[in-house]
Amino acid sequence: MSTTSRAPLRERFAVVMAGGRGERFWPLSREKTPKQLLKLLGERSFLQQAVDRVLPCVPAEHVFVITNEAQAGDVRAQLPFLPSGNIVAEPMGRDTCAAVALGAALVGARSASGVMAVLPADHVIPDADAFVSVLRDAFAVAETTEAFVTIGIEPTEPATGYGYIRLGDRLEDPALGSLATGFRRAERFVEKPPYETAVEYLASGRYRWNAGMFVWTFEALARGLRAHVPAMHEACRRWTGVATDSGAFASLLARDYPAVEKISIDYALMERADNVVVADAGFAWDDVGSWSALARHLEPDADGNCAVADFVHVDSAGNLIYDARTVRTPIALVGLRDVIVVQTDDAVLVAQKHEAQKVKDLVRRLAADERLKKLV
Amino acid sequence: MSTTSRAPLRERFAVVMAGGRGERFWPLSREKTPKQLLKLLGERSFLQQAVDRVLPCVPAEHVFVITNEAQAGDVRAQLPFLPSGNIVAEPMGRDTCAAVALGAALVGARSASGVMAVLPADHVIPDADAFVSVLRDAFAVAETTEAFVTIGIEPTEPATGYGYIRLGDRLEDPALGSLATGFRRAERFVEKPPYETAVEYLASGRYRWNAGMFVWTFEALARGLRAHVPAMHEACRRWTGVATDSGAFASLLARDYPAVEKISIDYALMERADNVVVADAGFAWDDVGSWSALARHLEPDADGNCAVADFVHVDSAGNLIYDARTVRTPIALVGLRDVIVVQTDDAVLVAQKHEAQKVKDLVRRLAADERLKKLV
Repeated sequence: MSTTSRAPLRERFAVVMAGGRGERFWPLSREKTPKQLLKLLGERSFLQQAVDRVLPCVPAEHVFVITNEAQAGDVRAQLPFLPSGNIVAEPMGRDTCAAVALGAALVGARSASGVMAVLPADHVIPDADAFVSVLRDAFAVAETTEAFVTIGIEPTEPATGYGYIRLGDRLEDPALGSLATGFRRAERFVEKPPYETAVEYLASGRYRWNAGMFVWTFEALARGLRAHVPAMHEACRRWTGVATDSGAFASLLARDYPAVEKISIDYALMERADNVVVADAGFAWDDVGSWSALARHLEPDADGNCAVADFVHVDSAGNLIYDARTVRTPIALVGLRDVIVVQTDDAVLVAQKHEAQKVKDLVRRLAADERLKKLV
Repeated sequence: MSTTSRAPLRERFAVVMAGGRGERFWPLSREKTPKQLLKLLGERSFLQQAVDRVLPCVPAEHVFVITNEAQAGDVRAQLPFLPSGNIVAEPMGRDTCAAVALGAALVGARSASGVMAVLPADHVIPDADAFVSVLRDAFAVAETTEAFVTIGIEPTEPATGYGYIRLGDRLEDPALGSLATGFRRAERFVEKPPYETAVEYLASGRYRWNAGMFVWTFEALARGLRAHVPAMHEACRRWTGVATDSGAFASLLARDYPAVEKISIDYALMERADNVVVADAGFAWDDVGSWSALARHLEPDADGNCAVADFVHVDSAGNLIYDARTVRTPIALVGLRDVIVVQTDDAVLVAQKHEAQKVKDLVRRLAADERLKKLV
């Protein structure tokens, strides 16, 4: 990856997507405090870390956060240095294409020639410098070529929970010079594959994980929306007209959103476009999709137990113990392997590590129970 | 088992042994609140149930409870209908022979011709009527024959944690008549056997579990102690002289106890005596030696989960969930089998069911930790 530093050709923006529900970190994550708002690792929440990471190449006034009504207050409180109009709550969830169009409106209203990065709020990227280096190059490639740049993650396991991108030819553009290194054309997007297919993808070395990180100019995005999801383009055009006026923008969104197509940006645009380019991430990345994934980022003891708790045990190994109570009380394990124990002030979760993804099923069960839905 | 009702020949007494530490029910059991004081099943503690069970054939004034200093206050509070002098704290733990001698002194001081039952405080016997019927017959046999009667439990599994008694000939005594049915001479006592031996014992049908329930006259016991543990007999004789005066009794015990031999009644007497008779229990019995044993007495749901808690789960079966908090909070399980979860106001325990006996190792670990020993 080149680290060529050239003066930006256009104004740069970042749109951080922070609408996720994060059910999989129950009982710590709740509807109002989803994963991205939690300080699970370190002193800063995932959202704060996501915003911190872009600040070396995007000014704070150009960083937007798309969230929802329930979380907007906490998002503002966590990001006091962002202009309040930069934090926008969707009236309702309408999948990622609508959220991207909303973000594009915020960008386009400020700079029709701007270039924007769309970034998730709840991923872990320990090496922020490496990320910034890739993001800078991605901005440069997007603004030079009008391509849709996606930052692809090199698979480390045959994961079946991610979309994959098949790499095509190296990018060759005389205008890019050495910048082109580390960029390839995307041959195609693949939905979450079955396990055997994922094994093949991993072995081939020709696939990258789709981590939901995109960089494009406002103009290129608008052209793409017009070509592939025209109604969304029309909505984006209307929204752009009022997006610098918070009140008018909110009213228009409230009116338009119910009718907006519920479709992901991957389906709507990335799978259909022919100008997608993949930047090789080259940095460690984790979407920390469950409690068991969190353990990868904690320091284990000699028995492989990771504890953010007052922990004592007999013959127990490979466990994750997390106490989020205001006043911690000891958590004791006897003869257990690969179990997750999480304690909050109002609930206790005990889960088998390899079943941790089913915590979301548990949350649905709670939501359906009149007596327990207050815990969701 | 005969239910012949004949007028008691002698005054009857019961000595309930309530000095156990009950580490295996941590975090609910503590040094000051061991298993026998807990209300784990129903509204009455194991101790209260043990005393309740003997009242149909022993008057309350004749029921003694041997406990220790730390627990005496709670024992008195749980048994307000017993004369306060009937609850006696040992100055220190000195195994069961000393406690039996202490109990015998309380009996002998009131009636040298009395007959006494020695009974554990922390076992579960659901059918109290069946128990009383056996106890009545055991009293009658002991006072008629001067034998040491022990109530033996028919094994239901090849347990390696109990002592066994090998059954000998049927008891034949013209003075007993039909009472003799259900009584056999004990051929010998066997310490906790290895598993293979326990399997043989179970298959043979000739063994009973030694449940620590004994019935004998004061005179027969005194003779046995004199023959087999003379120093203990001497101590018992001294104690009997003052046992109706609580203050003098306590002073004498405090003086004598440190020098008393630390030996079980099984080693000291039962294995050496030749006049031991076994009564067939014929009632269901459980010493509930661990959290996993408790589950046997709770009603499981369709997935085999026993919950004394606000419990919710996904794909979990065969678990025991116990919430002893003042205000219960939900306990949620995901993908777990055969696990025990216990919550108190100051600790959480999660243990594999088949490792539940190791909870006592955990308690030792806590006791050795300056910061955690307050939880013991």
